[in-house]
Amino acid sequence: MNFKQYIPAFDWLTNYKKDHFKGDLSAGLTVGVMLIPQGMAYAMIAGLPPIYGLYASTLPLIIYALLGTSRQLAVGPVAMVSLLTAAGIGTLAVGGTATYIALAITLAFLVGLIQFLLGVFRLGFLVNFLSHPVISGFTSAAALIIGLSQLKHLLGINLGRSHHIHEILLEAFERMGELNWATFAIGIGGIILIKGIKKINKAIPGSLLAVVFGIVTVMGLGLTAQDVKIVGEVPEGLPSFVLPDFSIATMKTLLPVALAISLVSFMESIAVAKAIQAKHKDYKVVPNQELIALGLANIGGSFLQSYPVTGGFSRTAVNDEAGAKTGMASIISAVLIILTLLFLTPLFYYLPNAILASIIMVAVFGLIDIKEAKYLWTANRSDFWMLIATFVATLTLGIEQGIGIGVVLSLAMIIFRTTRPHVAALGNVPGTHFYRNIDRFEQVEERPDLLIFRFDAQLYFANTSFFKESLEALVAEKGTALKTIILCFNSINNIDSSAAHTLEEIVEYYRTNHIKVLFTGVRGPVRDAMERAHLMEKIGRENCFMGIQEAVDFMDGQRLKKAEDMDEYILQTNE
Amino acid sequence: MNFKQYIPAFDWLTNYKKDHFKGDLSAGLTVGVMLIPQGMAYAMIAGLPPIYGLYASTLPLIIYALLGTSRQLAVGPVAMVSLLTAAGIGTLAVGGTATYIALAITLAFLVGLIQFLLGVFRLGFLVNFLSHPVISGFTSAAALIIGLSQLKHLLGINLGRSHHIHEILLEAFERMGELNWATFAIGIGGIILIKGIKKINKAIPGSLLAVVFGIVTVMGLGLTAQDVKIVGEVPEGLPSFVLPDFSIATMKTLLPVALAISLVSFMESIAVAKAIQAKHKDYKVVPNQELIALGLANIGGSFLQSYPVTGGFSRTAVNDEAGAKTGMASIISAVLIILTLLFLTPLFYYLPNAILASIIMVAVFGLIDIKEAKYLWTANRSDFWMLIATFVATLTLGIEQGIGIGVVLSLAMIIFRTTRPHVAALGNVPGTHFYRNIDRFEQVEERPDLLIFRFDAQLYFANTSFFKESLEALVAEKGTALKTIILCFNSINNIDSSAAHTLEEIVEYYRTNHIKVLFTGVRGPVRDAMERAHLMEKIGRENCFMGIQEAVDFMDGQRLKKAEDMDEYILQTNE
Repeated sequence: MNFKQYIPAFDWLTNYKKDHFKGDLSAGLTVGVMLIPQGMAYAMIAGLPPIYGLYASTLPLIIYALLGTSRQLAVGPVAMVSLLTAAGIGTLAVGGTATYIALAITLAFLVGLIQFLLGVFRLGFLVNFLSHPVISGFTSAAALIIGLSQLKHLLGINLGRSHHIHEILLEAFERMGELNWATFAIGIGGIILIKGIKKINKAIPGSLLAVVFGIVTVMGLGLTAQDVKIVGEVPEGLPSFVLPDFSIATMKTLLPVALAISLVSFMESIAVAKAIQAKHKDYKVVPNQELIALGLANIGGSFLQSYPVTGGFSRTAVNDEAGAKTGMASIISAVLIILTLLFLTPLFYYLPNAILASIIMVAVFGLIDIKEAKYLWTANRSDFWMLIATFVATLTLGIEQGIGIGVVLSLAMIIFRTTRPHVAALGNVPGTHFYRNIDRFEQVEERPDLLIFRFDAQLYFANTSFFKESLEALVAEKGTALKTIILCFNSINNIDSSAAHTLEEIVEYYRTNHIKVLFTGVRGPVRDAMERAHLMEKIGRENCFMGIQEAVDFMDGQRLKKAEDMDEYILQTNE
Repeated sequence: MNFKQYIPAFDWLTNYKKDHFKGDLSAGLTVGVMLIPQGMAYAMIAGLPPIYGLYASTLPLIIYALLGTSRQLAVGPVAMVSLLTAAGIGTLAVGGTATYIALAITLAFLVGLIQFLLGVFRLGFLVNFLSHPVISGFTSAAALIIGLSQLKHLLGINLGRSHHIHEILLEAFERMGELNWATFAIGIGGIILIKGIKKINKAIPGSLLAVVFGIVTVMGLGLTAQDVKIVGEVPEGLPSFVLPDFSIATMKTLLPVALAISLVSFMESIAVAKAIQAKHKDYKVVPNQELIALGLANIGGSFLQSYPVTGGFSRTAVNDEAGAKTGMASIISAVLIILTLLFLTPLFYYLPNAILASIIMVAVFGLIDIKEAKYLWTANRSDFWMLIATFVATLTLGIEQGIGIGVVLSLAMIIFRTTRPHVAALGNVPGTHFYRNIDRFEQVEERPDLLIFRFDAQLYFANTSFFKESLEALVAEKGTALKTIILCFNSINNIDSSAAHTLEEIVEYYRTNHIKVLFTGVRGPVRDAMERAHLMEKIGRENCFMGIQEAVDFMDGQRLKKAEDMDEYILQTNE
């Protein structure tokens, strides 16, 4: 067994240097200090008691540190996955109840299992089906939903459980009279504090200061009397070993949301891991091993009361900036959380929910990506609409549905585009051997007896009719002077059996109409496919040429080589 | 309003010649004579009393003759659509009952409405998504199911209502003792008669002779006493005007099967219409008008007790061979059926079901296409598996599911193939300006300081990682001598915004590593997309060339033109 392959930590453990520890210690403590408020806040998004955010910040971090291929990735609770958890099990149980908590933990197990299996079966590439615009539209919408889900904590109004933004906003507006001014003031104070400190010095842990500010204010001014909601009793001690619910019925119910979380969380994690790795040359991120590491982190965590975790954007960036060199940094973060669980939980009794809400809002509103939408408006209009469609679908139909619709739409668009691809009639650029689109280039020369046709897509069942029709239209334009058609296969990367049938028909049809059909620049794999379909025999190998100029020369009777060399020449060099 | 466009019959009606009538009369009578037994047999497949096959052979034929663009297409009941009808409404009502009949007629209305709307909104191209292998696999499986569904009529055993072939065969085998020898003998006689006559002379209407043979045998030998099942009382007279069931609930229930029938029947119809049109130069088949014509034929028919119809393979071929010149042939066929309904129905009283079964079996077993499967085995292995998958799915999961799975699988395959496309490192063919794949051509020359990379697919979100990784792998092979990368964009037909982001990253990454990145042969639409994404500025227009040789010359400092002409030259001619 190759330890280094299965347990990448061996690589850095066996070469661990004193120098590494300095960076790892500073980064580990910084991320740990961030994790305390973030973990509690994200647990709140997920509909769980805050302590579960800390439970999720212990064992999973250690497992990932040993099995993951990234050395800076900071694993733990993140906003998006927390929201997906809430959306997925919110319909099955009431938030915060024992049933709800048990479902969240089982969900972690199931997510872990799916990720582990995807990794083992090397299916990590599936995440490639999430395009830029879909990710951007989905993230912005999810950020908006997460942010607004915290509005009730910020205003101190007990809003309904709607996930629809217009309903949330309408209800908040109607019940503005119930606003708890003390809660609102603390929340706004927290936002200003975090934003302000970020501007002054990014190294200061703003959210931790906001936590201290919140606790001190509530205790000092006795604001619980003003009905300011606080975290209250936080159980002391480590998470206990509890088996997830393995019943088939539960697994079946949770499967769709577990699939969505598996892919979305892996996508978030791999994106940030790759971005950070690009700055470091001493290791390589391996997607399938990442799936295995995240999968086992979630499975392991689920036995110690953890809900789904993944590698997060902000903490990973902080981890790297603070000097993390190896997975040791994450282990140090986990140790800090364990110490907090053992000794510091009583301190959080007076922590106001409004502070946790302010931490969440600052974090997620930064994810709303208007720049990308603006860029796509000019750069790629159809991708812009894809972003908008995913954004709107996520907001109106729901989190998982939104990303599903985005993926299906973007694949449909790819297919649809190939059904009516770009085609061109080519002419000669005078004095060169180049042939270019006559509609784009004024100076190219066209001959009445020759049509050079280029089709810019793989030729397959969904576009063979279009191929035939667009060729027919160009042939009709040429009229009776036409003697030869050159099919420029430069940009045809693949043909299927429907295409082979169509090409055979076309060659036969024009031949009976006394028009020669020549082929140029046929790619290797396409030529192989033509051979297997016995199409080459019907076309005639002597009608295939390397370049358009060679076909034109042949047509004009100026053979490049002696006739007897022709066959071999064509066969060997034609691609 | 342009009559000729909306009512194509004006075209042939206004130019109608005596000469046309001779062909139309002979063809119309021949097809009409075929229609009597076929219509009754296909109604039996659909689970309807035989008379409904004759009803469906009246008004729809006349409507199509006036509105359709094909002049030889013979519309009416066909085997495949009849089977789909049975599969679709068989679960909703018991075959032959009034409810069942009402559902079949409503189905015709709904199919017609869908086809009409598809035509009006010019969505006829949707049928292109049915690939050759999917059609072939589906047709063979459907033919097998149809054929076996008639086994009970051929054996005279009242088998269960299973659509699963292994269950049908097993039951038939187990209950072979119940075989009705007289029924079986008549059925086999019918098959031999039809097949034999076909071999001797195709012009003789074999199925009509089989009908006569069946009636005469049953009457002459008094076989009803032997429990030979006969058609029995056939109502006299024309179909009556009955409104389809317009309730939303019924429409909703029938919608999925109506969609499947709309597409499958259009596909069958347009395929045969186009095939026949290729032999005639005096008209053109217009797919969207075909949808409108078939749609109105079905809608109109549904008001006169017709079940779904379409243009059929065999009768169209016969129509054309018998000399049909215009839609008048179909009108004559319809008139013959109307006369039959008025005066001849009593003749069919003693027609044995076994004869109708033999007509169906001969017709459909001819559709089982083993040749195509054999061809694909060598020609295109993945299309072969696609055929098998559709075949198996249709047999085991059902008629509509089979075709749905086929379409989804073949699109998934197209997508999947583009995620890991063919890539090549190119080298120079000595003494020419050609550059070819170094793995395919031994004589090409490679330079240690230059990597020429070609990627054979559109570049989009699902394959940007693969692009990056395969380029990285080739760069790593080259080692430190590498100074320049030429990205040959000849076969990249499209880029999306994810691709634009990736290309920007790649150019920046290699530039910081002191490796030049040049682009050659960028297609017009791709260049436009690059411009809009502001990628051209980042790449530098001076790094784009028409051909690989030009880029190599530039790299070696041999500029083709004076430096000051360079920019314009590149901009104008680079494609």
